[in-house]
Amino acid sequence: MSDVHAVILAGGSGTRFWPASRRSRPKQLLPLAGREGEPLLTATVRRLGPLVPPERIWIATGAHLADATAAALPDVPRSQILVEPVARNTAAPIGWAAATIARRDPDAIVVVLPADHFIADEHTFLEVLRTAIGAAEGGYLATIGIVPTRPETGYGYIEVGEPVAEGVHAVARFVEKPDRARAAEFLAGGKHLWNAGMFFFHAGVMRDAIRAHLPALAAGLDALDAAAARGEEAGALARLFPTFPSISIDHGVMEKASRLAVVPGSFGWNDIGSWEVTWELAEHDAQGNAVPEGTITVEAHDNLVKDLTGPRGRRKRYALVGVHDLIVVETDDAVLIIPRERAQDVRAVVDALQARGETERL
Amino acid sequence: MSDVHAVILAGGSGTRFWPASRRSRPKQLLPLAGREGEPLLTATVRRLGPLVPPERIWIATGAHLADATAAALPDVPRSQILVEPVARNTAAPIGWAAATIARRDPDAIVVVLPADHFIADEHTFLEVLRTAIGAAEGGYLATIGIVPTRPETGYGYIEVGEPVAEGVHAVARFVEKPDRARAAEFLAGGKHLWNAGMFFFHAGVMRDAIRAHLPALAAGLDALDAAAARGEEAGALARLFPTFPSISIDHGVMEKASRLAVVPGSFGWNDIGSWEVTWELAEHDAQGNAVPEGTITVEAHDNLVKDLTGPRGRRKRYALVGVHDLIVVETDDAVLIIPRERAQDVRAVVDALQARGETERL
Repeated sequence: MSDVHAVILAGGSGTRFWPASRRSRPKQLLPLAGREGEPLLTATVRRLGPLVPPERIWIATGAHLADATAAALPDVPRSQILVEPVARNTAAPIGWAAATIARRDPDAIVVVLPADHFIADEHTFLEVLRTAIGAAEGGYLATIGIVPTRPETGYGYIEVGEPVAEGVHAVARFVEKPDRARAAEFLAGGKHLWNAGMFFFHAGVMRDAIRAHLPALAAGLDALDAAAARGEEAGALARLFPTFPSISIDHGVMEKASRLAVVPGSFGWNDIGSWEVTWELAEHDAQGNAVPEGTITVEAHDNLVKDLTGPRGRRKRYALVGVHDLIVVETDDAVLIIPRERAQDVRAVVDALQARGETERL
Repeated sequence: MSDVHAVILAGGSGTRFWPASRRSRPKQLLPLAGREGEPLLTATVRRLGPLVPPERIWIATGAHLADATAAALPDVPRSQILVEPVARNTAAPIGWAAATIARRDPDAIVVVLPADHFIADEHTFLEVLRTAIGAAEGGYLATIGIVPTRPETGYGYIEVGEPVAEGVHAVARFVEKPDRARAAEFLAGGKHLWNAGMFFFHAGVMRDAIRAHLPALAAGLDALDAAAARGEEAGALARLFPTFPSISIDHGVMEKASRLAVVPGSFGWNDIGSWEVTWELAEHDAQGNAVPEGTITVEAHDNLVKDLTGPRGRRKRYALVGVHDLIVVETDDAVLIIPRERAQDVRAVVDALQARGETERL
């Protein structure tokens, strides 16, 4: 059996979680769900533990996030934090990471996971992962498809084809984000899964697929391999990476490739799209409040209070009287108050800060 | 003309302004209205400036507030901060203060004012004060009656009698807090004024009135005078003050005395009964928000944000999205969020803290 490596995609800006998320501290570095105080990225790596130890974990991120990323993952070797010189969507960093892994371990199986998702049932998740890894070992470009629980219009879908192995299906096709009516059909039909951006492949199989469908990227990766063989990788990366095509792995490779497999999974997956979801995933008191310990609530219900201040601020006592369905987020330099149902409108605050040139709070 | 002294009543607990108000920092020590950052007590003394300089200002307060009171009034001599050994309502501290003033200046006119009120039109206030002082010089126990602007049931009223001088009327009677219907009658009738707890008298006239109506207090004050003559005032005060009757100057003296006068006044008076009033008195933006400079508001209106944190916290940026008629108060150790219309229910938070024994936040 081949060694399994994991590539965690940990770039991103995360305006939806202002004031917690900033350019220098995007969503995956924040403890938005799950274990108290554990950043989503840290949880992503921890969850993989039984299958992929830290010495085979690779993190693709931006230069401005490299230090914070390393700090969140003390067990991952610093040399495995792959710093993208510029942002080039997902195909380029996945191709680069797979090539880097293949240089160390040509027979590697690569697991690609987003850094900022929440998974409630970690045991089942690992089971599904094992199945998907098995499909990759069988030569498939495999993915996990999340069994839908609502007619979601915000995700791409994967239409399930014939079964090809225990728990594994061929992919009939990838489907763009549907409108409401189609999303409802998908949910009722039982043949469509959410594309959660998780990919599983043999390093060589992905390289072949890139060669077939993104030849410019393949040529760049070849040049990078050659430079690495001469011990000149760093300079070559800075020169070559910006020339790589900026396209997603979905559009650039998966949607065009053959030998695609999907493993349906149902393990309490959530991509935590807004503060509203943070409230949903949090523990609540009897009145539906998810608030710091010691908060005083008087006829207040279904509120989220997230205190992300430092040690000085953390001792603050919150008191909510007669308010409901409110989100309150406090950091060391900002306070957000917004109704839960408007959580997506945090973007307007970020826009206002941008318009004012208040870059220190972006 | 006699010298005018002022006695500012500055005790109080102020649970209605939690988390800003605490046992050790009641309402009058907070900048709840008027000039940015100016505590109500400081404003009360400043306003008197043209009529009563700091060297003739006396502050009656409790031992736990003495230092903070002195800090808020650097120009008032520390010896004129009269520290009540125990709380004994208002007749006792007024009698004590008047006796103390009379020892220095037997012919003094004494002005008694609450420490925690707001006055919008300071010029008119001083005019009315001069008129009331004139009445006191004429031998009256005088008061100011605020011309009502609404059918308020929370205040006592003064029924106006015959005019006795320019701008001065006899008091027909003091009236207890009315019910709604009577308050409406009072407002329509034009013969009733709000009792705002401001009193004006010749020190000797008040002493005579106390002798007539509160003989126990008069005897205590006599003993205090005798001890002071022997240079033993401090010890005598600690021994005697707790034995003084605990009664208000209204019930104990004013309602029983003769030669009562009232000066009607209309100068934007407000006793700032809750955070709601703080919102009313604050400057608003076009959407009715009274918020710190730089606050981001997106479809948010008629909110109050009061940032009373120290220098570290003061730099926080507040962002309000889609909320309205909300009160948000932040201090270094607590945050309150409550609808404006429920501002009086702050008491429930204080009760909860008390029940929990969280005395450090009371």
